[in-house]
Amino acid sequence: MKPSQFPNPIIIAHRGASGYLPDHTLEAYSLAIDRGADFIEPDLVSTKDGQLVARHEPNLIATTDVSKRPEFADRKRKMEVDGVNEEGFFASDFTLSEIKTLGAVQQFAERDQSFNGKFRVPTLTEIIDLAKAKSREKNRTIGIYPETKHPSYHRALGLPLEDALIAGLKVAGWIHVDAPVYVQSFEPSSLRYLRERIHVRQVQLVMASGVAADGTLEFNPRYGRPYDWTLSGDARTFRDLTTPQGLAEIKTYADAIGPWKPFIVSASTEAIGVAAYNELNRKLVAPSTLIDDAHRAGLLVHAWTFRNEPHCLAADYKSNPVSEYLNFYKLGIDGVFSDFSDTAVTARAIFRLQNTK
Amino acid sequence: MKPSQFPNPIIIAHRGASGYLPDHTLEAYSLAIDRGADFIEPDLVSTKDGQLVARHEPNLIATTDVSKRPEFADRKRKMEVDGVNEEGFFASDFTLSEIKTLGAVQQFAERDQSFNGKFRVPTLTEIIDLAKAKSREKNRTIGIYPETKHPSYHRALGLPLEDALIAGLKVAGWIHVDAPVYVQSFEPSSLRYLRERIHVRQVQLVMASGVAADGTLEFNPRYGRPYDWTLSGDARTFRDLTTPQGLAEIKTYADAIGPWKPFIVSASTEAIGVAAYNELNRKLVAPSTLIDDAHRAGLLVHAWTFRNEPHCLAADYKSNPVSEYLNFYKLGIDGVFSDFSDTAVTARAIFRLQNTK
Repeated sequence: MKPSQFPNPIIIAHRGASGYLPDHTLEAYSLAIDRGADFIEPDLVSTKDGQLVARHEPNLIATTDVSKRPEFADRKRKMEVDGVNEEGFFASDFTLSEIKTLGAVQQFAERDQSFNGKFRVPTLTEIIDLAKAKSREKNRTIGIYPETKHPSYHRALGLPLEDALIAGLKVAGWIHVDAPVYVQSFEPSSLRYLRERIHVRQVQLVMASGVAADGTLEFNPRYGRPYDWTLSGDARTFRDLTTPQGLAEIKTYADAIGPWKPFIVSASTEAIGVAAYNELNRKLVAPSTLIDDAHRAGLLVHAWTFRNEPHCLAADYKSNPVSEYLNFYKLGIDGVFSDFSDTAVTARAIFRLQNTK
Repeated sequence: MKPSQFPNPIIIAHRGASGYLPDHTLEAYSLAIDRGADFIEPDLVSTKDGQLVARHEPNLIATTDVSKRPEFADRKRKMEVDGVNEEGFFASDFTLSEIKTLGAVQQFAERDQSFNGKFRVPTLTEIIDLAKAKSREKNRTIGIYPETKHPSYHRALGLPLEDALIAGLKVAGWIHVDAPVYVQSFEPSSLRYLRERIHVRQVQLVMASGVAADGTLEFNPRYGRPYDWTLSGDARTFRDLTTPQGLAEIKTYADAIGPWKPFIVSASTEAIGVAAYNELNRKLVAPSTLIDDAHRAGLLVHAWTFRNEPHCLAADYKSNPVSEYLNFYKLGIDGVFSDFSDTAVTARAIFRLQNTK
């Protein structure tokens, strides 16, 4: 895309305005756009009939009301997702028309539950249509930031995400470098496959399995490595993707790196996947050199996930989410994924004032 | 003004985006407008040469850097403001051009101090010009919500606020009922004086001196009564302005009542004027009937002051400022004064979604 199309840094509405409304719904995306977000972020999983829908996981149990629908009770089963056994209701066992009967649910217990069941699960096409309609309404470009979610898992099911994504972007006319699109994935092979076929901007996500007491990142084999590497026997971890050599490798198939926040500013131990974590008693350590290293490699840096709730903010920020954004903006971040993108936009306006005076 | 000119409820940026930037500055007003506020709120005090400037108090010591200016050291003195002795630097001892050399300061210690000294003290005229320019830029009407601050005090100094305000509004062409203006005051005589001369919307502010442990409002003679009543020997309190009889009286010279929040939803003891209060351990009591009573009297209700910080939110809201707005919106409030008007605007969008499904 043309750099001038978007402000800097960009504000990515993580799963939509998911801090306020059930995530990955057209209503959550609309609210985020209305309150200033530049990009809306759909995580993509496949239905039984190969349609791409926006959900955080293939397992629909936490983010929809599927478990309360007697007509789908027999779909409950166990599946292995990237080496982990899960029980629930999997998108690949439902047709799109069946999924369209489900209501979206707010999965974070501390957030507003009053909208549960009221919004539908949108398709990629509906999300693209929304971005285009809102771009016209607002007279500014709204981009999409889709993630191929568990690409190896989907390929093994015979429901590969990449070709469906390419088809959807082609219909939108969004397969060129200037399209308002970033495609993200944790699996390098998914991005490499796409890069050979279309020319949109791409983002290599990187995560860690945890943070040690001193703020050092940890990389266990389960969460600390792209799952396609586990399958292919590549013993490296995400840490290896953040070295100068790893960044140069990313640059061959992507335009940006999408690190978990502690890769840039770490604090102390935080377990992955725990919704009720508490950052309040953690102190920040000195920032890493990742932003500079990535920039030197010609890559942008988009970090995740920013949240307003006091328990998501290290003690240094004194329960003020704006302080965290200002810290990352000052370090030169190119974009942030936020559950509360309205606050990220306000913080960006404040950051600009800091730098014009 | 035409009701259709503004959304409902209206969002009033209390002292501008004062949660983020030094209050009562053009920068704070601009940020609030850019993030969706409908009205910007200047408190008005008079300079020595009778110019109206936006400051929360006649005493400039807490919201400007005046005490650090050696050239003004000799202006420091004691003055009585509404029966209370204060020491400091008073706007009425400075010409406008002198005040224009001062820098605005964030007076809440827990808020961002990095902008201190960088922004100027604006005049009423500059604020009106900003509202008009931003209305054109945004293609929506931005209103102003000026307060005559300590009107009796200013009159006694020979610097009455009302005629200067009328003159300023006349120049703007904003003296008719459809003008995007609400004039507010704690002193009924100030509003009565204005009502005889111009026809803008007016708001009778009401406050209490405290809240008892059970949530009952308290009214001591110092803070619980309009100061013009104290001067004229009227022994009633603000409480009397909230009875059906009092509301009918307000209706003869105003269009709305502007109560302190606990008049509508109270909690427990809170001292007036204490910046570092902590609401976290307080529980809400059942709402009053004031909104319905005022509506029955033909008055709108605009409540103050809404703030994002966890220590400003009763325990019931679980550190989530959106929950407090939704509570007041559901009760039928017509407007809110907020230090963080961006959050109030987001909450309004969520409230509408709640009511369209």
